[in-house]
Amino acid sequence: MKLLKEFDQKDPLAIGQELHRFAKELYPICRSITGDGIRRTLAMIQKRIPLRTFEVPTGTAVFDWTVPKEWNIRDAYIKDKSGKRVVDFQNCNLHVLNYSTPVRATMQLSELNPHLFTIPANPEWIPYRTSYYKEDWGFCLSHNQMLALEDGEYEVCIDSTLEDGHLTYGECYLPGRSVDEVLISCHACHPSLANDNLSGLTVATSLAQFLSGRDLRYSYRFLLIPGTIGAITWLARNRAATERIHHGLVLTCIGDNGRFHYKKSRRGNAEIDRAVIHVLTHYSESPEFLEFSPYGYDERQYCSPGFNLAVGCLMRSVWGSFPEYHTSGDNLEFIHPQQLAGSLRVCTAILDLLENNRRYRNLNPYCEPQLGRRNLYRSTGGDGIGEDSNARLWVLNLSDGEFSLLDIAERSGIPFSIISQAADLLCKSGLLAVVPDDKPGKRPSTGLANRHRARRGRS
Amino acid sequence: MKLLKEFDQKDPLAIGQELHRFAKELYPICRSITGDGIRRTLAMIQKRIPLRTFEVPTGTAVFDWTVPKEWNIRDAYIKDKSGKRVVDFQNCNLHVLNYSTPVRATMQLSELNPHLFTIPANPEWIPYRTSYYKEDWGFCLSHNQMLALEDGEYEVCIDSTLEDGHLTYGECYLPGRSVDEVLISCHACHPSLANDNLSGLTVATSLAQFLSGRDLRYSYRFLLIPGTIGAITWLARNRAATERIHHGLVLTCIGDNGRFHYKKSRRGNAEIDRAVIHVLTHYSESPEFLEFSPYGYDERQYCSPGFNLAVGCLMRSVWGSFPEYHTSGDNLEFIHPQQLAGSLRVCTAILDLLENNRRYRNLNPYCEPQLGRRNLYRSTGGDGIGEDSNARLWVLNLSDGEFSLLDIAERSGIPFSIISQAADLLCKSGLLAVVPDDKPGKRPSTGLANRHRARRGRS
Amino acid sequence: MKLLKEFDQKDPLAIGQELHRFAKELYPICRSITGDGIRRTLAMIQKRIPLRTFEVPTGTAVFDWTVPKEWNIRDAYIKDKSGKRVVDFQNCNLHVLNYSTPVRATMQLSELNPHLFTIPANPEWIPYRTSYYKEDWGFCLSHNQMLALEDGEYEVCIDSTLEDGHLTYGECYLPGRSVDEVLISCHACHPSLANDNLSGLTVATSLAQFLSGRDLRYSYRFLLIPGTIGAITWLARNRAATERIHHGLVLTCIGDNGRFHYKKSRRGNAEIDRAVIHVLTHYSESPEFLEFSPYGYDERQYCSPGFNLAVGCLMRSVWGSFPEYHTSGDNLEFIHPQQLAGSLRVCTAILDLLENNRRYRNLNPYCEPQLGRRNLYRSTGGDGIGEDSNARLWVLNLSDGEFSLLDIAERSGIPFSIISQAADLLCKSGLLAVVPDDKPGKRPSTGLANRHRARRGRS
Repeated sequence: MKLLKEFDQKDPLAIGQELHRFAKELYPICRSITGDGIRRTLAMIQKRIPLRTFEVPTGTAVFDWTVPKEWNIRDAYIKDKSGKRVVDFQNCNLHVLNYSTPVRATMQLSELNPHLFTIPANPEWIPYRTSYYKEDWGFCLSHNQMLALEDGEYEVCIDSTLEDGHLTYGECYLPGRSVDEVLISCHACHPSLANDNLSGLTVATSLAQFLSGRDLRYSYRFLLIPGTIGAITWLARNRAATERIHHGLVLTCIGDNGRFHYKKSRRGNAEIDRAVIHVLTHYSESPEFLEFSPYGYDERQYCSPGFNLAVGCLMRSVWGSFPEYHTSGDNLEFIHPQQLAGSLRVCTAILDLLENNRRYRNLNPYCEPQLGRRNLYRSTGGDGIGEDSNARLWVLNLSDGEFSLLDIAERSGIPFSIISQAADLLCKSGLLAVVPDDKPGKRPSTGLANRHRARRGRS
Repeated sequence: MKLLKEFDQKDPLAIGQELHRFAKELYPICRSITGDGIRRTLAMIQKRIPLRTFEVPTGTAVFDWTVPKEWNIRDAYIKDKSGKRVVDFQNCNLHVLNYSTPVRATMQLSELNPHLFTIPANPEWIPYRTSYYKEDWGFCLSHNQMLALEDGEYEVCIDSTLEDGHLTYGECYLPGRSVDEVLISCHACHPSLANDNLSGLTVATSLAQFLSGRDLRYSYRFLLIPGTIGAITWLARNRAATERIHHGLVLTCIGDNGRFHYKKSRRGNAEIDRAVIHVLTHYSESPEFLEFSPYGYDERQYCSPGFNLAVGCLMRSVWGSFPEYHTSGDNLEFIHPQQLAGSLRVCTAILDLLENNRRYRNLNPYCEPQLGRRNLYRSTGGDGIGEDSNARLWVLNLSDGEFSLLDIAERSGIPFSIISQAADLLCKSGLLAVVPDDKPGKRPSTGLANRHRARRGRS
Repeated sequence: MKLLKEFDQKDPLAIGQELHRFAKELYPICRSITGDGIRRTLAMIQKRIPLRTFEVPTGTAVFDWTVPKEWNIRDAYIKDKSGKRVVDFQNCNLHVLNYSTPVRATMQLSELNPHLFTIPANPEWIPYRTSYYKEDWGFCLSHNQMLALEDGEYEVCIDSTLEDGHLTYGECYLPGRSVDEVLISCHACHPSLANDNLSGLTVATSLAQFLSGRDLRYSYRFLLIPGTIGAITWLARNRAATERIHHGLVLTCIGDNGRFHYKKSRRGNAEIDRAVIHVLTHYSESPEFLEFSPYGYDERQYCSPGFNLAVGCLMRSVWGSFPEYHTSGDNLEFIHPQQLAGSLRVCTAILDLLENNRRYRNLNPYCEPQLGRRNLYRSTGGDGIGEDSNARLWVLNLSDGEFSLLDIAERSGIPFSIISQAADLLCKSGLLAVVPDDKPGKRPSTGLANRHRARRGRS
């Protein structure tokens, strides 16, 4: 099955518009790491893909962490003396410091001030701030709004609850021929922010829709989870299952106009790293590749030393590096149908590569087979050959059972899709045979994977 | 024995002129992959070196291929209505599509047209085209010639035969102290084309003459064979013997004015690759090094995965990349005595390196030996030392039995010839001893060689 | 113990002035590879550090060499007809060819000429020349001085002795918790030359003073020895002890205004090589790194193939590459307090790195530990983190017992000192534990070290 080829038969504009429409539906919800916001979000995704949701009680120990109290909010505002809401949660859910404890008080501006967050450098935008693990309350507002506040008394209300409850996450598992898994992980805890991470959520949902019901080599697991604590909770509850994760991607910030960036896994040269680098190099403009670092999104947890999973992070603009990041500037106009569709295409190409990246054995390893009599070569000699013929020669030459098609694509400089077509054609001609997959569940025997297994074995 | 030193005592101009004279003798013959053309060519070479020729019958299975019918040609032309030969094989043997079936017919230009090959971009040159494995006939002519053809009837004659017969190739074996071999391979199947490959044939012949009768470390095998089918035939008939081939070069296009290009073997870092890179870097201007690819000349067969021999391809201009390639522009004026002699010198330097690339053991490995009292060092201290002294220090420092002289030359940046002289002098001084060669016939125990052996072992 | 932190609490100007003052004291002494000059020099150093001196008799066999006769000199001059000393050892001890045999004669200028050494390119400077192993005599003078010599008769006197005696060297051993050693080696045989090598001698002496009496991980061995023959003598007398040398530096030419240069050990990627490269990259301007070569100072002996010790050479300007080298231009004005102090700081930083370069184990390897509740992380989310937090994440992520702090510093690009502080803090927080050192005296099990041991085992 060639996923990319099939994807390319669809109308990219229609795909992009559908992705953007879905982002628009999800945008108004006030999400957090727990509570009804993420529940409603997952429920809307459940209408599209077979998503299972999980509820983990407050207080549950998850490695070094504890599932926090559940936070819910109905309303919040700052009213001036005239009773006018000068800051209003109903206008924009970013206005509340996420996870604010309830408050109802009247206070002077000077008292209120330490609870106000703004971005002086971008005075029109409301910042996004959180205080998950230290009980606090506050308001986020544009710097201009704050400057307009006159001295005097204000009525402050945060109608929230922070109580024992649950942490909620969603999981969509698509079984393939092998129990070996590809993990796609997105954080689903950010309120009205579009690129971070409605872009990831909508693309991941469409990807799961696209894969659903297909005959696949790998099993696929999509995790739509609160950032950090969600990944930690999932890993704590599924520690043994991580053995089956062979490749993984964290998707975030993939709807804006920036070129692609890929942050490599801790291993640095895992198959997923090489697959993404190959795909972005051949199918996108001027991509950039970042070495692993332990700060970032949930790859931090997947790549912690006890797990060391082959999980990288795919982005367009890098989180933290664009001014709209974590502000009200990251809104529905900051993401674009064309870019969302382009990101979905790149993800499809990556999975297509993983699905088809097999090793083959040339059944005529001594000298070249005579391609001409099989109509796999030009008949008049003396002139050059085309890329298709060249791809066949490369596949034959390197298919000694050791090199994968990705190895061959990398060494030849020919795009994987053409190498993969050449392998298919040579198989049909009886010149090539696929090397059987390793026993399902068994990791490929690379040095890194061995070390990974060994380390886990001792734990 | 220092081959290069001895070579350099000769007159390079005389050598070059002799090479060009021999190319001129061979030039008019209409060679093909079988037939009397290649037989006559090998007979002329036999007058110079102890060449043994082999005849392999049509129909012989050689791996995935079959030795084709033998092709011979006496005459061919296109006559216009006036009886004038407008295209005449007697003027240039490129005019016939090589391996054309016999034809005798009268036809309109429109019927003839699909059988005509030209090069519109170089309208003065006749292309060289072949149809070895699909029975066909045709004429190659300059584009201007074709444009001058008027509509009307033409008499077409190709007086050829395509019948059961033999494939002919030549082999010159020069035994050395070890049965380990160096392979030099040239295709001998091209008709009147000078750079491709009379340059290779003449240089290889001179090289064999030069080596003949000497006391050599390696045995040398020169193969003068039809391209592709000849290499496949030889490999099929000598499969076990390939175990003895430690280093190999395909020589082609080494007579033109271009700088040197070397295409590495499939292994990429074999001793032959490193030897050629070292020699070209130190003894030629601005050489270029190309990674292995499975399209090209007979290195395709030697480097097929079942063999994976350490065989690269030495060229000046790269076949296919210069406009004269496979046209009548590749004639005797396109190759030059000076360049032929220069190529012979480079080949000599490469073999000199292989012959002398031994590992040594420093017999005083603890601290430096006192070179001064052996007159191997300056006596007044305080000033610098020369390259000869420096080479001695390098050889002593790295001769722990592990590093070869080529390793030392590469690491020090000093030309191999100077490193090799230093080793000789230190041996004479009793400071150094050569490490005995591995058992003859045994491959050096590098990872690649092991893999090579292992793979072969399974076949 | 953080050596660098403590060093940085001192006044660098005072340190530099003290170093320069000591160089000034040592400058006038006429040192050579044997004799009273080096004895007096070592005696002056003995007042500052616990230096033990050794006397090795003339004629002692040391590997391929023999300890030479002892040389001493009282006076030397060339007098013109008027009795005026036109060249006078009392003015500058460079005037005598070091190791000159005694001479007392009257001769014509033409007879004298072959015994005169000058530097025409720098006509104001007196060269430094030696003739240790070939008995000879001579004078070194400025080229201008020589040009001023008129034809005629000269009285020549070298009041030296070359007789059986001893070779003298000094050794300062500072025991640490492990018998594994760091070697610091300086040549102490040059007469009035400041950068080469009073800079090395004074910095090494101060370094030993600084380390003396501290609780150290490694033991430190300072060798102040005559160049070449001294290193050979020490190695011959301490061959077994070299097993304990884990890291080493030769110090020379570290007082001038040049930027730092580091010549790597023969191993090329030993911990000392990586440590110096890291320190110079982070703590100096535009350093340059040179590959190992077998010509140079005493790293030649330490890195001879029988020893192959991990010893590199730290310099500012590279010996032989600056015009003042081995001339009277290398005087007290050529070295500077600021640069001497800077070199001492760099040496301290290197030793600080070696002392603290341990491997650690993350005690919560599954996901990140919750740094926030330990006050090791910011509490309000949504904004970036600082370098200190980042360093903690790096140390936690890579501390799987395999990577050292230097590995982590290299991969993260964060200076070692910050990485090391992060590790200390995480240890205090109970999140990290140090991996015990290998058994003292056992070399780290890298490939190179194994090869080193294996080679020695066979000898």
